[in-house]
Amino acid sequence: MFRSHNCGELRATHNNTEVTLAGWVQGVRDKGFMVYVDLRDRYGITQLYFDEEQTSKDLMEKAQKLGREFVIQVTGKVQERASKNPNIPTGNIEVLVSELTILNSSLVPPFTIEDTTDGGDDLRMKYRYLDIRRNPVKESLIFRHKVTQAVRNYLSSDGFIEVETPYLIKSTPEGARDFVVPSRMNEGQFYALPQSPQTFKQLLMVGGMDKYFQIVKCFRDEDLRADRQPEFTQIDCEMAFVEQEDILNTFEGLTRHLLKEINGVEVEKFPRMLYDDAMRLYGNDKPDIRFGMEFGELNEVAQHKDFNVFNSAELVVGIAVPGGNSYTRKEIDKLIDWVKRPQVGALGMVYCRCNDDGTYKSSVDKFYDQDDLAKWAEKTGAKAGDLILVLSGETNKTRAQLSALRMELAERLGLRKPDEFAPLWVMDFPLLEWDEDTERYHAMHHPFTSPKPGQLELLDTNPGNVKANAYDLVLNGNEIGGGSIRIHDKATQAIMLKHLGFSEDEARAQFGFLMDAFEYGAPPHGGIAFGLDRLVAILGGQETIRDFIAFPKNNSGRDVMIDAPAPIDDEQLEELSLKLNLKS
Amino acid sequence: MFRSHNCGELRATHNNTEVTLAGWVQGVRDKGFMVYVDLRDRYGITQLYFDEEQTSKDLMEKAQKLGREFVIQVTGKVQERASKNPNIPTGNIEVLVSELTILNSSLVPPFTIEDTTDGGDDLRMKYRYLDIRRNPVKESLIFRHKVTQAVRNYLSSDGFIEVETPYLIKSTPEGARDFVVPSRMNEGQFYALPQSPQTFKQLLMVGGMDKYFQIVKCFRDEDLRADRQPEFTQIDCEMAFVEQEDILNTFEGLTRHLLKEINGVEVEKFPRMLYDDAMRLYGNDKPDIRFGMEFGELNEVAQHKDFNVFNSAELVVGIAVPGGNSYTRKEIDKLIDWVKRPQVGALGMVYCRCNDDGTYKSSVDKFYDQDDLAKWAEKTGAKAGDLILVLSGETNKTRAQLSALRMELAERLGLRKPDEFAPLWVMDFPLLEWDEDTERYHAMHHPFTSPKPGQLELLDTNPGNVKANAYDLVLNGNEIGGGSIRIHDKATQAIMLKHLGFSEDEARAQFGFLMDAFEYGAPPHGGIAFGLDRLVAILGGQETIRDFIAFPKNNSGRDVMIDAPAPIDDEQLEELSLKLNLKS
Repeated sequence: MFRSHNCGELRATHNNTEVTLAGWVQGVRDKGFMVYVDLRDRYGITQLYFDEEQTSKDLMEKAQKLGREFVIQVTGKVQERASKNPNIPTGNIEVLVSELTILNSSLVPPFTIEDTTDGGDDLRMKYRYLDIRRNPVKESLIFRHKVTQAVRNYLSSDGFIEVETPYLIKSTPEGARDFVVPSRMNEGQFYALPQSPQTFKQLLMVGGMDKYFQIVKCFRDEDLRADRQPEFTQIDCEMAFVEQEDILNTFEGLTRHLLKEINGVEVEKFPRMLYDDAMRLYGNDKPDIRFGMEFGELNEVAQHKDFNVFNSAELVVGIAVPGGNSYTRKEIDKLIDWVKRPQVGALGMVYCRCNDDGTYKSSVDKFYDQDDLAKWAEKTGAKAGDLILVLSGETNKTRAQLSALRMELAERLGLRKPDEFAPLWVMDFPLLEWDEDTERYHAMHHPFTSPKPGQLELLDTNPGNVKANAYDLVLNGNEIGGGSIRIHDKATQAIMLKHLGFSEDEARAQFGFLMDAFEYGAPPHGGIAFGLDRLVAILGGQETIRDFIAFPKNNSGRDVMIDAPAPIDDEQLEELSLKLNLKS
Repeated sequence: MFRSHNCGELRATHNNTEVTLAGWVQGVRDKGFMVYVDLRDRYGITQLYFDEEQTSKDLMEKAQKLGREFVIQVTGKVQERASKNPNIPTGNIEVLVSELTILNSSLVPPFTIEDTTDGGDDLRMKYRYLDIRRNPVKESLIFRHKVTQAVRNYLSSDGFIEVETPYLIKSTPEGARDFVVPSRMNEGQFYALPQSPQTFKQLLMVGGMDKYFQIVKCFRDEDLRADRQPEFTQIDCEMAFVEQEDILNTFEGLTRHLLKEINGVEVEKFPRMLYDDAMRLYGNDKPDIRFGMEFGELNEVAQHKDFNVFNSAELVVGIAVPGGNSYTRKEIDKLIDWVKRPQVGALGMVYCRCNDDGTYKSSVDKFYDQDDLAKWAEKTGAKAGDLILVLSGETNKTRAQLSALRMELAERLGLRKPDEFAPLWVMDFPLLEWDEDTERYHAMHHPFTSPKPGQLELLDTNPGNVKANAYDLVLNGNEIGGGSIRIHDKATQAIMLKHLGFSEDEARAQFGFLMDAFEYGAPPHGGIAFGLDRLVAILGGQETIRDFIAFPKNNSGRDVMIDAPAPIDDEQLEELSLKLNLKS
């Protein structure tokens, strides 16, 4: 046995007990006649004590020479501390060491192993194994484990079966780019890594598995935006013999359970919002509803005056900034600059101060009188002391711009509280979305999502207006899950694929197995998938996912610690019947 | 709500309740004036009842037209059955149907959806989604779920943290062949899929994670033997600050828990056997100890007579077949033929009958008298009525041949009882094994396994004799887990890699990150990995893993259901900077 106790569990009740501990040297305070060593392991920190009067000279010297991050094993007696540390659970005791073994030495670490480290991101990633020793990272990984255990236990108790689906599957042209895996045994052929187990979970429903889940890695070869990973983890779920309502209730139950079990937060029944309303009220299909600042559409009250900017706009829309009338002119100008940044892209912004005395003062007083502005206030819900900010232009773009501004202001105003949780179902997503680049419709969710009852006919006449049995679960302005009721008959699936531009042959080649399966008694089914990385981060009160992933990749998809990807041997290429065809 | 109950839960206590069920038509018995339909879902089968007197004509006809595997929804009243079926839990009741909705029709399935199907393997795999509807497959998948849940809950309660390690890692030349994944963003470079998370779990130990586990997919691009899959699942575990004894106790605890929780079997402390003894007594490093038939080495008592076959052999070794004296001469000849098959490869076999009267009759009576043969009986533990079978030749080959014979005979004698569980630790494996093809030593376990204390020096003089801190957990003649205490210092790791034929540069390129990590305070650590597919199969009393995997691949690594792998577009190849370089 390497240790009798860990470094987090000794208390005053252990006084006079002989114990053996092992761990890392967090720090040494050498006062000449007394030496204090903080010994750290996964469970905590315990103070080790050596002094001239009770410790042999050899041992004293050995302790004095210990370096940071040395791995040691000590035996000694627990005793009360002279000066207690109320900040740590072991703060009342220390161990008077009688034996000390150095299990391994350490070079000086390239950054400090402290909650707040002096190491930059690149260094931390290169030495991730040292970074993981730091409390914030270690606790994030343990937190992730707790969340996944809670998910598994909840779903298992509810009759869900976790089924492993294959990782070596088939590449499909729909959706994001696949990672592919050349097959040596099947020359010239490739597997693909799954972007999600979508078709397999549907086949499990056809197979009668009824309630399936899986916590599973998925892969997307996309150009990486910040906080995206080429491999990510999904909580993938599917149910048969259900209607949308059953799925919403089941996974609302799961989410409520997590909030209670993990965060100790009780949440009421989740509100639901139509996609169209979310876009109208928040300019966003994943609105953060922890705070108000709903959009007020002003076309009715701001157009047909002499202000041409508004008159020519498809949409005029504003929000009220609570207490915003206290902003100086300079601060407002800075906000206007902010929305004009290329990342946001507005051409300008109109504002209107709501004075405490009930009067208004706007940047377009030339065109609007007090009555007009009062209507703006009414539409945006602005009260005395607020500031109304108004954007105008093409509907979708303007909504996106105002949404960005709303989130930025909420952040600045401290309205996005990490310990407050506001879940929301967004419902009735469009089935298809127009892609400017390829000039055709794409499945907004995926090609297996069913249209709302009776809307199949609309596909021919007005495809952009067809709504789907699709829903997203939004938490604090983040999409944490999304799903749909699936198509479960071959005819509808064929129509859908046709509208997505698949020829019959292509549909057959790509999804023949699924279409075949639909001919052998496919039950009605639907499901949802949660992004685990994001879910865990949000439950953990964080906005970025990286510290909830043990070994993340950087924005070029590289693991800088192990230095992957890397070239492979010519022999390996030869075996795979491949040749490099470098562009550069 | 699609259903008020499932097809497995109605009992006589539900009589007169109106219920709604949904599921698949297992079969229709049409007696003209009465129609019985067996309705099946994941949970069971419920009999539906229609009769002329109580059912409308339309409904009656609808029921008569139902085909096998149609998906239907019915509403009706639960009533007592006229003739009860004691074989199923719902056998006392039936549902008198008042409403019937056909949710989906079905083509006639290509094989029967029964416990014993008429479908051959290929057909079952092509239509795996139908195969999964069959009880044996469905129950195997549910069983697998129960085992993994039990594993996770046990390890979590014991303080283990499940940490996800990356799937896109770096190819290493050591061990089996990697599957590789070309990187689009890093031209000409490749990721590899992990053969195991070995280095990552060691880095987690360096990172202070202390007790790690993960149930994780692993990948090996090997020519597939029967019952091997290119992707397989491991229960991967690692602990820091432990000695071998701690690991054995911890995972013996896990295995004992599974046997109790899953199989209701209480097992005593697991016996332990040295690798050398396992080879000597069973000719095998994973002996099935549910039955005896231990090897008796006969060199001492069978050599130096006039029988040259034995005299010239490195090893003469026999086993006693219980009750084998009842075998006819013809049966014994068949056994001799069996060991001479190329798969076994013996040149011949000597036998000796142990007669009830205490005399012996051997096939080599010319060379051995009764006293000699009595010694054979003593060495092999043969009693009156048994049959001694003796092989001879080069030690390793002869042991392997006799081991194959021992397993075959035990199978025939019914000694390998699937509901009996005999776990065993096999300890002190050799560190290295000689590879005839490459004419060099390979790591028997992997390059990170530590040699037994004090044996490092032997690496130079007698590498084949160095024993490792390595252990396997064997259950009923199958290796279900294997692990080791790892090397945790850079110097030893460097020596080890040198002996495995890595130049310093190669070692640096491949394992530099691990060697670096060892310089920053690596703790002593070790672990184990269980093959989940095999473990689940054995706990389930089966010898083959395939039905415990939802979507397995065939012996050419193909998924015949989705038809993967498959060619990819030229465009995809181009993006990956690759060209095909076909040999044929």
